Amino acid sequence: MSFVTVPENSHFPLQNLPYGVFSTQKNETPRIGVAIGDQILSLTEVAHLFDGPNLASSQHVFAEKTLNSFMALGKAAWKEARCTIQSLLSTDNPVLRDDMELRKRAIVAQSDASMHLPVAIGDYTDFYSSIHHATNVGTMFRGKDNALMPNWKHIPVGYHGRASSVVISGTPITRPCGQTKPAEDKPPVFGPCKLMDFELEMGFFVGKGNKLGDRIDITNAQDHIFGMVLVNDWSARDIQKWEYVPLGPFLGKNFGTSISPWVVTMEALSPFIVPNTTQDVQVLPYLKHDDQFNFDINLSVAIQGEGMNEPATVCTSNFKNMYWTMKQQLAHHTVNGCNSQTGDLYASGTISGEDGTSYGSMLELCWKGTKEVNLGSGNVRKFLKDGDNVVLSGYCQGDGYRVGFSTCEGTIKPAVI
Amino acid sequence: MSFVTVPENSHFPLQNLPYGVFSTQKNETPRIGVAIGDQILSLTEVAHLFDGPNLASSQHVFAEKTLNSFMALGKAAWKEARCTIQSLLSTDNPVLRDDMELRKRAIVAQSDASMHLPVAIGDYTDFYSSIHHATNVGTMFRGKDNALMPNWKHIPVGYHGRASSVVISGTPITRPCGQTKPAEDKPPVFGPCKLMDFELEMGFFVGKGNKLGDRIDITNAQDHIFGMVLVNDWSARDIQKWEYVPLGPFLGKNFGTSISPWVVTMEALSPFIVPNTTQDVQVLPYLKHDDQFNFDINLSVAIQGEGMNEPATVCTSNFKNMYWTMKQQLAHHTVNGCNSQTGDLYASGTISGEDGTSYGSMLELCWKGTKEVNLGSGNVRKFLKDGDNVVLSGYCQGDGYRVGFSTCEGTIKPAVI
Repeated sequence: MSFVTVPENSHFPLQNLPYGVFSTQKNETPRIGVAIGDQILSLTEVAHLFDGPNLASSQHVFAEKTLNSFMALGKAAWKEARCTIQSLLSTDNPVLRDDMELRKRAIVAQSDASMHLPVAIGDYTDFYSSIHHATNVGTMFRGKDNALMPNWKHIPVGYHGRASSVVISGTPITRPCGQTKPAEDKPPVFGPCKLMDFELEMGFFVGKGNKLGDRIDITNAQDHIFGMVLVNDWSARDIQKWEYVPLGPFLGKNFGTSISPWVVTMEALSPFIVPNTTQDVQVLPYLKHDDQFNFDINLSVAIQGEGMNEPATVCTSNFKNMYWTMKQQLAHHTVNGCNSQTGDLYASGTISGEDGTSYGSMLELCWKGTKEVNLGSGNVRKFLKDGDNVVLSGYCQGDGYRVGFSTCEGTIKPAVI
Repeated sequence: MSFVTVPENSHFPLQNLPYGVFSTQKNETPRIGVAIGDQILSLTEVAHLFDGPNLASSQHVFAEKTLNSFMALGKAAWKEARCTIQSLLSTDNPVLRDDMELRKRAIVAQSDASMHLPVAIGDYTDFYSSIHHATNVGTMFRGKDNALMPNWKHIPVGYHGRASSVVISGTPITRPCGQTKPAEDKPPVFGPCKLMDFELEMGFFVGKGNKLGDRIDITNAQDHIFGMVLVNDWSARDIQKWEYVPLGPFLGKNFGTSISPWVVTMEALSPFIVPNTTQDVQVLPYLKHDDQFNFDINLSVAIQGEGMNEPATVCTSNFKNMYWTMKQQLAHHTVNGCNSQTGDLYASGTISGEDGTSYGSMLELCWKGTKEVNLGSGNVRKFLKDGDNVVLSGYCQGDGYRVGFSTCEGTIKPAVI
C-alpha cells in the first residue's frame, strides 16, 4: 500500500510505477517522474534517495530530460530503482511520507502536468507480428489462399519506420496529403488522404543495446527490454497502397506515430506473463525459446467524433494475440549484427484478434470499406474523419488491481493543402 | 590560391573546403575541420575568427563534436563560413598565414588524423532514383516488360533505412548471418550471407529541417540541403530476397552503411550543375521544378581482394544518371507533413548508368550471378569475398582543379556464426 491514495481501477498502483517525463506550468523543464494513482513522484526531487549499489553513483540519471541514461544502466539498476521507489511510496516508510516539505516538491498532480516523449528514440522499427492482422490484410489484397506470405511464419517480418515523427499522446495529427491512384487507368492525383486509419499496436524500448557486428541472443533478449508503451501507427491507406511496392510503406506512415506517455516496465508486467502462441511451423534455432514471454494485456480502441458525447469502443483486443514474441523480434533484428541502441522503439504491428470485434484497424473493421462501423447515435465510420479523437487503452487485470498504460490519444486535424 | 600546398589532382583545393570531424593521437577529442590539400584546418582552433553577422555570436558551433549545430544555422551562415575559411586560407590573407603559433595548432596533416562520423544522423532514408538501376533489378526479378513498377516515374520511391548502423569510411563490415531460402521447396536455412554486395550511392544531409505537419516546398528545397557524401549501402542479396515482401528491405541492409568522411557543400558543387534528366512522364505539380539541380560527379568503384596489389575498378558511373533530383526527393519526403531534422541522411539509391561498365552493384555487374566480373591477374568475382576492400570514389572535374569526396571504403570481415 502507498500513502499516496490510489483510486479504484487506477492504472497506476504501487505494483506498476511506470516512468515518464513531465513538466508543469510552474516548472517548464521536462523531468523524470513515476506515476502513482493520479499523482506523479518527481524522481529529480528524490534522486538523492537512490543509495543502492547500482544507483548511488548514478543519481544524475534522474536529473535528465529523458529516460535514456537510466535505461542504459541495465537490468540490475532498473530493479534497484523499482525497489527504492516502491519503498519510498509505501505506507510503512516515513522518509518521504513524513517529510512534508519534500512531498510538496516531489509529488505533483497528473492534472497539473504536461507529458513529453519519455525517451530520445534513435531508431524506430515496426514489426508485423499478429497473425490475424497479417491474414486479414493478406486476404483483402491477395485473396484467402495467398493471405500469408511464405516467409511470414519463418521470420518476424518488420521494417524501419520514421523516428522523427514519433509523438506523445495528445499531439494532434494532421491529415496527410500525398499521391494516390483512385482510378486504375488514370494518372495519380494529389490531395488529402481519404482512407485515414489508426493501427492498435504496442512497442518496447531497448534498454541496453548491442554493438554493431554483435547480436542479442534469444536466451537473454529479455534483459535488453526496458518496458512498453501503447503505439498508434497512423496510416494513410490510399497513399500506402500506391507507394509501397517494392520497398515498403513510407509516406503512408511517416506523418505521425503516437505513443502513450508512461513506460510500463517489464518487471511490472511480469505477473501477467502467459504461454506463448503456438507456432505451427518449426522456427530456426536462433528464434527458439521455451520460456514464456507473452503478456495478457487488455487493449481497446475508441473513437470520439465531433459532436459525440463520449468515445465509442470499436475494437477490443489483447496483446497475447501476438504470434511472435518480443524476444524473437529482438533476436531476429540483431542476428545480422545490426546494432540496437538505448531508446530504440520496436513496435508490434497491428494487434488484431481472431473475431471481428478485435480487429486493430479501420481497414479490417470496415473490411476495406465494404461495411460501416457503428459508433452509436447514428454515427458511422469506414475510415477516420477530421475531428475524430482516437483513444487506445491498455491494462493488465490483477487480483484487485490493474497495471495499466492509461491512453494513447490523437485527434485528426484537417489537411493543409 | 592557398598558402597551404594543394597537390595536383587533390580532391581538396580552395574551391572545395568540405567539412569533417577528426581526432589525432595527441588530441583524441573529435573536432570539426575543413580539408585543404592533404591538411586539415581545425575550425575549433580558429572559431574566434568567424566574426561575420551570422556567426559572430555562434562561434560555439565550431567547438562541437558534430556538424549539426553549424548545419542548423542555415544557408546564410554556411555561405559566411565558406567565405571566412576561403579568406583565412588564401595566400593574400596574413591572419593565419603569418601566425606560426596558430598555424601549428590549427593545421593538422590528414595522415595524422582519424575521421569520425561528421554528423549525428537522426533518420536515414534511402531512395531508388536511378532509372537504370531500377530497370536492371526489375528486369532480373520480373522480366523486361514489368521492369519498372507503375509508380516509379510518378514517385521518387524510397524507404526508411537504419540510422544506427551508418558508419564512417574505413570501418570493417562483418559479413552478416541470416535467413535465406536457397531451395524453393525446402525450409529456409541460417548462415552467412553468400551474395554480399555493395551499392554505389551518394547522400545528402538535411541542414535545416521542417516541423511535423509542415512541408518543404520544391521551390526552396535546395536551401535545406547542406552537402553530400559518398554512400555504400552494403547489401546481403540472399537475405534481402527472402525477407523483403511485403514490407521492404530490412536485415539485408541494416548491418552497415558506409559514408565518406568529408561533407562537400552544395556551394562547392554548384559549378558542376548540369541539366536535370528529362522526365518523360508528367509529374504532379509538387514535384515540378525548372531550375537545374543535377550534378556532374564522376563516380567509380574498385575492389581490392586479398593478395591483390591494387584495387581493380569494376564500375565507372556518374551522379548525373539520377532520374529524380534531390529537390524532388526532399519535397516528396515532406509533402505529407513528415518532419525532416538537421542531420538526416537521404541517399540516392544505387547510381547505375546505361551501359554495363557503369552498373553500381555486383548484382547488376554479374547480372544475378550469370557472369563473372574480371578484377585482373586471374581474380574474378560474382559477389564480394571476405577480405575484399571496396573503394567508392567521386569527384567533379573543374578547369584545372577537382572538387572531390575522396573515398568511401570498407573491408569485408568473415561472418561470426
